[in-house]
Amino acid sequence: MEQRVPLAVSWHDGATILLDQRLLPHETRYVTITTVAGMATAIRDMVVRGAPAIGVAAAYGMAIAHSNGDDILAARSALEASRPTAKDLFTAVDRVAAAWKVGGNVLDEAHAFAADTEAACRRIGEFGAELIPEGARVLTHCNAGALATVYWGTALSPIRVAHLMGKMPFVFVDETRPRNQGSRLTSWELMEEGIDHAIIADNAAGHFMARGGIDLVITGADRIAMNGDSANKIGTYEKAVLARENGIPFYVAAPSSTFDPSAPTGGDIPIEERGEEEVLWCGGSRMAPEGARARNPAFDVTPARYIRAFITERGVLKPSEVRRTFGRDIRVT
Amino acid sequence: MEQRVPLAVSWHDGATILLDQRLLPHETRYVTITTVAGMATAIRDMVVRGAPAIGVAAAYGMAIAHSNGDDILAARSALEASRPTAKDLFTAVDRVAAAWKVGGNVLDEAHAFAADTEAACRRIGEFGAELIPEGARVLTHCNAGALATVYWGTALSPIRVAHLMGKMPFVFVDETRPRNQGSRLTSWELMEEGIDHAIIADNAAGHFMARGGIDLVITGADRIAMNGDSANKIGTYEKAVLARENGIPFYVAAPSSTFDPSAPTGGDIPIEERGEEEVLWCGGSRMAPEGARARNPAFDVTPARYIRAFITERGVLKPSEVRRTFGRDIRVT
Repeated sequence: MEQRVPLAVSWHDGATILLDQRLLPHETRYVTITTVAGMATAIRDMVVRGAPAIGVAAAYGMAIAHSNGDDILAARSALEASRPTAKDLFTAVDRVAAAWKVGGNVLDEAHAFAADTEAACRRIGEFGAELIPEGARVLTHCNAGALATVYWGTALSPIRVAHLMGKMPFVFVDETRPRNQGSRLTSWELMEEGIDHAIIADNAAGHFMARGGIDLVITGADRIAMNGDSANKIGTYEKAVLARENGIPFYVAAPSSTFDPSAPTGGDIPIEERGEEEVLWCGGSRMAPEGARARNPAFDVTPARYIRAFITERGVLKPSEVRRTFGRDIRVT
Repeated sequence: MEQRVPLAVSWHDGATILLDQRLLPHETRYVTITTVAGMATAIRDMVVRGAPAIGVAAAYGMAIAHSNGDDILAARSALEASRPTAKDLFTAVDRVAAAWKVGGNVLDEAHAFAADTEAACRRIGEFGAELIPEGARVLTHCNAGALATVYWGTALSPIRVAHLMGKMPFVFVDETRPRNQGSRLTSWELMEEGIDHAIIADNAAGHFMARGGIDLVITGADRIAMNGDSANKIGTYEKAVLARENGIPFYVAAPSSTFDPSAPTGGDIPIEERGEEEVLWCGGSRMAPEGARARNPAFDVTPARYIRAFITERGVLKPSEVRRTFGRDIRVT
């Protein structure tokens, strides 16, 4: 497949090139990253976002550190401090640090992490497409597409493969306030791929479920605990509860880098709270009176009991199968 | 109580004065309505919104029709065609038409409807405040405050009374996409009244519920069926399901004008679908790629089983008590 969506993260001529996702869909602009501090800031400010893409960016951040002669473990700490929730970031820097420790080539390891992520996402698409019936109406939340990974996506990969198979899926796209990754990014990807869809307010998902308008839900994940509890973009928990209430299967698509062997349950997953301005403003305008305050948790935890299955590169797994499949830790200290 | 929030609807010198709620909280501008067509357009375009306020506006629309020498039943039809879901509009025009039919004073009847709405909202506040514990954290959705009624509000009336009683309620305000009545209007009312609150993305309500951060939910309603199914702003159903899932009481506050004796169940309530641009745009900016489509149901139906009780001017009622309390129709033909 020739992907029409540009790469979120790539390596070119000794630097990392990030597509600035804050400007999409209206503007396609790239940022060149040549320092660890620059990469940490780009991750924190969400120039690059989406758990696997953050992982790949962080892996390349380690390669930048190495080529700049920085201390590798200090670079890892700086990258880890950028955003707390997505496990892939930690998986990536640990993997590169482990290769470095045994004298491996740091850049090669970063490239290998990117290649593994791409391959995993493709496998997720192949496994996941089997779960999508002909003509199915699929709800997704946030953006777990090519922009959140490198090629294919996680939640969008099965939809993309089903589309290529001629299954004609229709996608309901939650706009995903407060940062509108659904309306800005997922819709843009689906437009580029020619996949039929409608954007809805996050408030409307339950309505369409209750009226029989949605056949299944697929989201990505930022970190998955060993009992199957899963952290993802704020609002995912709401959609999962509503799906179960309406008898609709709810799937979480993620590569192995998102699973956290050191988190027994969702209670062990750190939840980032971001700035109030993301809620108080929208589209460049203030939506609230002067002086009003907001709360802005960026993620929530969906307990395993709401999740029908995980779509991974190792196959489709029940929550009860997570621990024996992903329960090992490679952290280097 | 001196209310600090300006009146949404008032009658002055032979015309109706509407506060243009589309411009809040940044600008306080009034629109003078002197024709039935002008009133129907103002309701459709949401210059005035909120079921009881729409009812009062429609009652005054009938008074305008009468003073202009228009056909009263034609005026009723024109007003009824403005927006389909809020029952109060139909209740109001029916009541004024009934008075007109027996030779009553049309303007007096409109004033009486407004006064009854205000009195009902005050009673709702008194009954509802008993349900709010000291220091309770209350979630509300959309705006069901003074701006949605005439004085007091429906869902906000118990919160306002609890605040005046010194119970120190804290309010979580759903921003309420796509039109942000929560962040624009409810937050503004609460600021004016000095009631502590935080605006949240609609996606975050479930997260705070699951973490024990919300003690009860109160919303308004646009139309309530005789079995207790209740239509309200899109997203209300989602919050009701999440509240029950987390063992949190969910209350609906509404005056008798919102109850529909002719609707046996929620399936009999017409749900308005509004224009796509409300979803595709926010704060004056387009949030989606060119060519993207949206769906925009403005309301959803919360089945009675999710509702702990209705807070009405006749007291706090279980869903099973709705029919015998409100099951009579006064429609004039």
